[in-house]
Parts: sequence; structure tokens; C-alpha cells
Amino acid sequence: MADGHSRMNLQVNQEGRLRHLLDIAGLGSDRVVEILDTADSLLPVSQRSVKKLPLLRGKTVINLFYEPSTRTRMTFELAAKRLSADVLNLDIEHSSARKGESLIDTLRNLEAMHMDMLVVRHPESGSAHFFARHAAPHVTVLNAGDGRHAHPTQALLDVFTIRRHKPDFSKLTVTIVGDIMHSRVARSQIAALRALGTGEIRVAAPRTLLPAGMEHTGVRVFDQLEPALEGADVVITLRLQRERMQGAHLPSEAEYFRYYGLTAARMRLAQPDAIVMHPGPINRGVEISPEVADGAQSVILEQVTNGIAVRMAVMALTMGARGPAAAPGEPA
Amino acid sequence: MADGHSRMNLQVNQEGRLRHLLDIAGLGSDRVVEILDTADSLLPVSQRSVKKLPLLRGKTVINLFYEPSTRTRMTFELAAKRLSADVLNLDIEHSSARKGESLIDTLRNLEAMHMDMLVVRHPESGSAHFFARHAAPHVTVLNAGDGRHAHPTQALLDVFTIRRHKPDFSKLTVTIVGDIMHSRVARSQIAALRALGTGEIRVAAPRTLLPAGMEHTGVRVFDQLEPALEGADVVITLRLQRERMQGAHLPSEAEYFRYYGLTAARMRLAQPDAIVMHPGPINRGVEISPEVADGAQSVILEQVTNGIAVRMAVMALTMGARGPAAAPGEPA
Amino acid sequence: MADGHSRMNLQVNQEGRLRHLLDIAGLGSDRVVEILDTADSLLPVSQRSVKKLPLLRGKTVINLFYEPSTRTRMTFELAAKRLSADVLNLDIEHSSARKGESLIDTLRNLEAMHMDMLVVRHPESGSAHFFARHAAPHVTVLNAGDGRHAHPTQALLDVFTIRRHKPDFSKLTVTIVGDIMHSRVARSQIAALRALGTGEIRVAAPRTLLPAGMEHTGVRVFDQLEPALEGADVVITLRLQRERMQGAHLPSEAEYFRYYGLTAARMRLAQPDAIVMHPGPINRGVEISPEVADGAQSVILEQVTNGIAVRMAVMALTMGARGPAAAPGEPA
Repeated sequence: MADGHSRMNLQVNQEGRLRHLLDIAGLGSDRVVEILDTADSLLPVSQRSVKKLPLLRGKTVINLFYEPSTRTRMTFELAAKRLSADVLNLDIEHSSARKGESLIDTLRNLEAMHMDMLVVRHPESGSAHFFARHAAPHVTVLNAGDGRHAHPTQALLDVFTIRRHKPDFSKLTVTIVGDIMHSRVARSQIAALRALGTGEIRVAAPRTLLPAGMEHTGVRVFDQLEPALEGADVVITLRLQRERMQGAHLPSEAEYFRYYGLTAARMRLAQPDAIVMHPGPINRGVEISPEVADGAQSVILEQVTNGIAVRMAVMALTMGARGPAAAPGEPA
Repeated sequence: MADGHSRMNLQVNQEGRLRHLLDIAGLGSDRVVEILDTADSLLPVSQRSVKKLPLLRGKTVINLFYEPSTRTRMTFELAAKRLSADVLNLDIEHSSARKGESLIDTLRNLEAMHMDMLVVRHPESGSAHFFARHAAPHVTVLNAGDGRHAHPTQALLDVFTIRRHKPDFSKLTVTIVGDIMHSRVARSQIAALRALGTGEIRVAAPRTLLPAGMEHTGVRVFDQLEPALEGADVVITLRLQRERMQGAHLPSEAEYFRYYGLTAARMRLAQPDAIVMHPGPINRGVEISPEVADGAQSVILEQVTNGIAVRMAVMALTMGARGPAAAPGEPA
Repeated sequence: MADGHSRMNLQVNQEGRLRHLLDIAGLGSDRVVEILDTADSLLPVSQRSVKKLPLLRGKTVINLFYEPSTRTRMTFELAAKRLSADVLNLDIEHSSARKGESLIDTLRNLEAMHMDMLVVRHPESGSAHFFARHAAPHVTVLNAGDGRHAHPTQALLDVFTIRRHKPDFSKLTVTIVGDIMHSRVARSQIAALRALGTGEIRVAAPRTLLPAGMEHTGVRVFDQLEPALEGADVVITLRLQRERMQGAHLPSEAEYFRYYGLTAARMRLAQPDAIVMHPGPINRGVEISPEVADGAQSVILEQVTNGIAVRMAVMALTMGARGPAAAPGEPA
């Protein structure tokens, strides 16, 4: 728990307010609820004729992406712009990182430019924590996905979407289907579902895609899809990384779909009013059949909409909890 | 005409106002004139000290480019920014489209992000219509070039430029020179010139670059340049795609210039006050001689300036004719 | 001096105000001081909660980079955005320049789009002067580095940083260490230090990286580092371009560090209160030891902060000295 405690300290300031968003673990259910409540109040902004709030006016937000992800980058960029921030996209391939600059040098330089918020995606687990640990008091770090570790805004938008349909988590059975082992999304979803007291959390995957020892974490583990779907209120399918196909993990996409693809027939095992989720982009016919992806139970596009509101909420909350602006331009 | 009719319905809302801009065909001359008149009133904005109007404040414009085109993308971006919109550039090469996402999935996701306007360039003919056909009521689609089909804003800026010099189209002879067969620009220019009742429209090109059956469309077809220039009031040269050189279509750039290059000597066949146009970027010494491109009759740079005013006009008109903002974030 | 004079005319308008920033040479010490004083007044803007001034509202700034440089591009972009300008980044690799468009065509097209300011980086010496010589009266050109020639905003931020620590340049000994021969930074720094009447300017480099005849320019030349550091008040290390290693210029990075690396031991030869500078990104263990780069005497991160204030100052001053806005959209 020492680790969880230090993580919490990193994410929360002395008054208990959200400083960085790195990981759902250690965030605490009060803070998860606070983010969801704030997102509820920000959701209508994107539906207005003038989609703008002045909350981050004159602030500098840097999207620092060491892995390409158009969709995630766009939703952070839109969230920041709708809060009136100035946004700069820093793509690793064109950056001085190629010239061998270290993470700490990159951080110090961006701080010296008086950035206010760093949205970071990086292929290595722990990189967002690294940035937060070394960040100046006036800088907020948001984790947009670090290695196999965490993708907290995705998990928050997922539980936000569930809550808008099924507010009482204690009564819910939520089934997560897919590559649990390599998925930072699954890891963060489970933490968020736990923080909200979800009745039962299930995961279903081929044995080769299930991390060892998961049974001991309170999650029900299935290596077949059908029993995992029985009576489920929420079914979350994960994106299958096609790179995994090349390895020994999976025989083929067709084979995967045959045993783990979410079809209309299989969905009949779940509750009649169960909702279907997917973080996108969808591989139709691999993780999910087109009729389910586009069917009445699917809330996949709501997830995209909600993702902007949740990111706006996290930005608004963390900006209010920052330290005083430093003055690195002053001579020592 | 059924096709033209359905196209018109797609581009115009129930009150007869411009909803999308996909194609000059089916737009109707009233609407073309309305766009040009609006562009006239917006032209001074870019000449002011503060080049800003608040018309699109708080709106989200997405430049979705599946083909690279710095210049076209920039003029749309500047038009949107001068109307105070938030603009996001989505370059296909870095996007999830690489991961195999379909056009419809891309559209649905951008809609779920509450974009207001999609500016799309795509190598396949009909793709802009596809997006407009499937777009939500609150989304406007602008065609920035689809395959060999249409490039309506280019044609509108061309007729706008002509009108500022020679307002009475019925008296004009307009000659278009170059690769008519593969040119979406030529196709849209001819439609726009027709909508404005141009006296005589001529095309001149090597036989291999002339589409079959063009004689039957009311356009005068020439396979030699000189007679096509005689008495012309406006001469439009098209950009020669160098890729065509590799194929059997053309012998060489030097050969092309020898027979179809617009030189000062040839321009003496046209009216003394004829104007010379080119959509850019120019291949000097291929389609046109430097002295003509940079000479007193050239209005090529005015076309660039006018292109921003015309795009601002189309953005302003379509935004006023959209349906109500949807609320995809709401549970069903 | 005729050359210096014509340069001055290019950079300064008839009232003697800054029109373009191309080169420190010919700028005159009054104008250097004016820029530094303006930067002093703009430095607090980036430390405020709302980092915005409306000075460039409704202006269009184009970052035209023919060489990649994330850091320099970002600081210009942030400077422009904090002055409320609209900024477009034009990356050569995706631009029509690939299609063979000439510099003059690019300039004319950007002018026709009513850009107000062109920030240009180009691998060829003299390219910024070229743009300024041909620019329309309403366009300002800022040199962000041209070949081996000049990098004036870097030099200005360097002397700005020195002045904030040691205001009386006449009493200072400033030592520049590294690849003097190929460095536009060194060239501009020497000009800026001279304009401010610096007591003694020294350069230190291996003989292969020293331009011939430098002794005759009033700069003290050393081919060994230690004597060049003795009594220095300011030590500026230059970035070593690793490309040089491949050529005959240098034996190896380790060898370079052994003889020219700035270590704590060597810094003891300088004044006890000497400051250490580097334009970044740093190659630790090549030009400088980590303990010096991150030590108490280092002002390297202040340079980054100051770079934004200096660029804002140059933008603000040049915008006030432009000619009247042209009206290229008007028929001739």
C-alpha cells in the first residue's frame, strides 16, 4: 500500500484536490465521483452553439505524444480548446527527442516555456508518473496512456458512460472481453469499476491473454466468453492489437472472432438492457460483429462524446489545484 | 436529372439554403451568385488590421485530408480561423484510417466529438457526397477535392476572380487549357461557368487528355491551343500532374510546353485585356511561360486571395443553414 | 560597409524602426537595446495566470520551416499565440515546395493569403534576406536560422539572459566554446556582444572548427579551452552537430569532451560568479558535463524562458513598423 499511498500523494495536493491524473489506482472513489460529476456539468458545453468556456484561457497545454494516436490526441486537443487554452502538439518523430534528449530535459524545457499542462502518451509504463514526480509546482501532468500500465481518462469516460445509463454500480455485473494481459485500458477500467463499488467485475479472454494470478484480485476470470456474459449489465470489448496476431498469443482473427467475438446471439446471454462498449477504433468482425457495434445496445459513440466532457473535467479540476506559477525567468 | 436533383437536395436544406458544398452541378445559379456576393462582402476582412469575424466562434472545423495539399488545407484553415472557429487538422497518414477504420466510422466518431464542419479531400470520386449523405443534421461537409470528380471551392474562387474583372459572363469566351480528362478542377469550372451563363466555354488539350463525348456537352473542344485562344477573354491553364508523364498520355514536359504552353506570343491571339488564371502550384515552363505567369494579365495571386474569401463565404452560408445541434451524449 | 548598410535598410524602416529581423549585423546597438528593453517588459506575461496580450490579435503568423527544429518552432509559436496571433505551421516535407515551387512563389502565395509575419528557417545562408528583400510592405520576416549565416533571436535571447545577470557588458569577458566555423549561433552571438560593447569576446575550438582570419576581427581566438576560460564572466557552449563527427573535423565525441568539454574543474578557471549557457538541446558528456549543465552557475533553462519574451518583443516591435496592408484582392 505504500506505493498506492505515494501515488495518491502525487495525484492529489495538500488540500486533497486533484493535481495530476496518472492512474485510477490510489485516486479514491470520492475523487472519481467528483470527476464524473464535473463531467456531467461540462457535457452540455459541447452541445451548445458556442462550444467555449474561458476556464483555461491564456493557459498552455502541450500534447506530448511518443506514440501516435490521432483519436486520443484529438479529444484532448478539443477538450483544451473548448476550455479556451492554447494547445501545442508535440509529435515525437519531429522532436528533439530523436536527437537523444532525455525525458527530464524535455520536461524542464517545456516548463521553462511556461506550459501549464502536459498531456503525455508514452510506450513505457510509468512515464507519466515520472513526469509528475519531476514536474514544477505549476505544471499538471495528464496520463494519456503509458505502456501497458494505465489509461485513466479512458477508464473515467467508460464509467461515466455506464453511470449515465445505470447509476447504481453496486447492482451491476460488468464483463470485460479481450486482451486483458496487454491492456492498459482494462487495468484502468477495473480500478475505476472497483472505486465505484461495482457488484461484480468479470474478465473473459483466451488463457494466453489473461495475466497470471488475476483470480486473487476479486475479479471473476473466464477463459470462455459465454458464461462471462450471462446476466451481464455492461459488456466492454477491448480493441485487439493486430500486432499480437503475429506472436504466439492468438491463432488468427477469424479464430478469435469465432470464440470471443461479441455477436447478437451471444449478447442474448446478457441482460436484455445490457449496454455494449468499446474504446475504439473497432475491428468489426474481430472483436465485435457489425450488428452489435451499431445496434441499439451499443453506446460506443456516446463514449467518444463523453470522452471530451471527462477530459474537460479533469483539466478544469487539476488547473484549480496547481501550485503558484513559478518564475524561472528570474535570475537566481 | 434524378441524380442532379438528389445532389441538389443534399446540398440545400428545405428552405433552399446551402447546407453542404459538394459539387457545382445541381447547385443552381442563384446559389452560386449568393456565394460570390457573400465572398465580395468578406473579402475586405483579410485586408483589415484585425482579420477576424466572430461568425464561427466556438465551432469545430475538421480538415480531413486523405491526400496531401498544403495550399488548399492552409486556405481552408485560414478561412476558418478568420471566422474564429477552432480548427483541427487530421492528416490521414497519422490517423486511425491507417488502422483500417472505415469512412463511416471516421464520420461517426468526428460527429460524436461535436464537430460542426468537415472539410474533406479524398482520392476517390464521390467521397464528399458519401460523407454528406451520412452526416448528422448539425454537420456541414465541404468538398476540398474528391478524386477526378469535383473541386467546387476552386471553381467558385475562379468564377469569383473572373467576375471581379469581367462581370457580364454572357459576353465572355473562357478557354480552359490542359489535362481536362483527369481534372476535377476543370469539371467544376465548366459547371460554374455554365451556372453563370458564360457566352462560350472552350477546352484545349492533346486528344489523349480530352474525355470522349465532350463535344455533346455544349463545350467547344480543341486539340490545338492557338484556335482555342482566339478572341478569348479568360484563359485558364490547369496544373499538369507530372505523374501523367510516366504513362502513355504525354510525350514529355518540353513537348507539352511546345504545343500547349501558354506563351506571350500565343496570348496575343486572345483579347488584349484577357486575364490569365492557374489554380497553382505552377510548373513554369510546362503549362505556362514565366513571363505570362508573372505578367500584367495574370490574376493568379488574386485567385489565392479570393480563395480565402470564397471559403469564408461558403463556411458562413452553410453554418447558417445547419440543422439543430444533436445531443449524442444523451442516453437513448 | 555598403553591404552592412543595405542590410540595415532592409531591417529598419524609414523612421528607423525594426521592420524585419534577419541578422544582428547592421542592426545597431540602439535597436538591440530596444529589443532587450521590450523583452524585459514582456517577460512577466508568460508568468501571469492568463498568458495573453492582444497585440497581434487577428494577425496571421506563418512558421515556414525548411529544416526541422521542434524547439525553435515551438518558442515562436508560443510567442505568437501569447500575443493572440493566428499561427500556421508550414512544414516543408508536406508542402508544395516538394513539388518544386520556388521560394518566391511560396512568398507570393503566402502574401496573397494576407499573412502578416513569416518566421523562416532554411538550410541556405541568405534565405531570410531573400524573403525580406522581396516581401510586400505589410509583411515582416523573422530569421529563425539560415544555413551557417545567422540566428538572430537566439543571439538576442543570449545577450538578454546575460544582461539580466551582468548588466554592464563593457566589464565582461565572454567565452564561446565549440564549433565556431559552422555555427550561425556563434556568428550572431559575436555580433550581438559587439553591439553591446562587450569588454572581451573569446572563442575556443579545435583548429579544424575555427574559421580562418578570425584573429583580425577583434575576437581573441584560442585552440585550447583552459586559457580561454581564465577569468571569464560568461561561458557559452555550442551544440556539437553530430554530423560533423563523420567528417574529418573531429576525432570522436569522447575525444572532444576530453579537450573541450565544459567540466566543473575547468569552470574553476572562470570567475566564481560566471554563468554557463547553451542554446540546447544539450549533448551531456560531449559539450558539457551533467554537473555543470544542471549546476548553480547554469542559466540554460532561463535561456528557454527568455527566448519566448525576446521573440514576443521582436514580433511586437516589427508589427508596429510595418507598411500599410496591401490589397492584392483588388483588380488591377
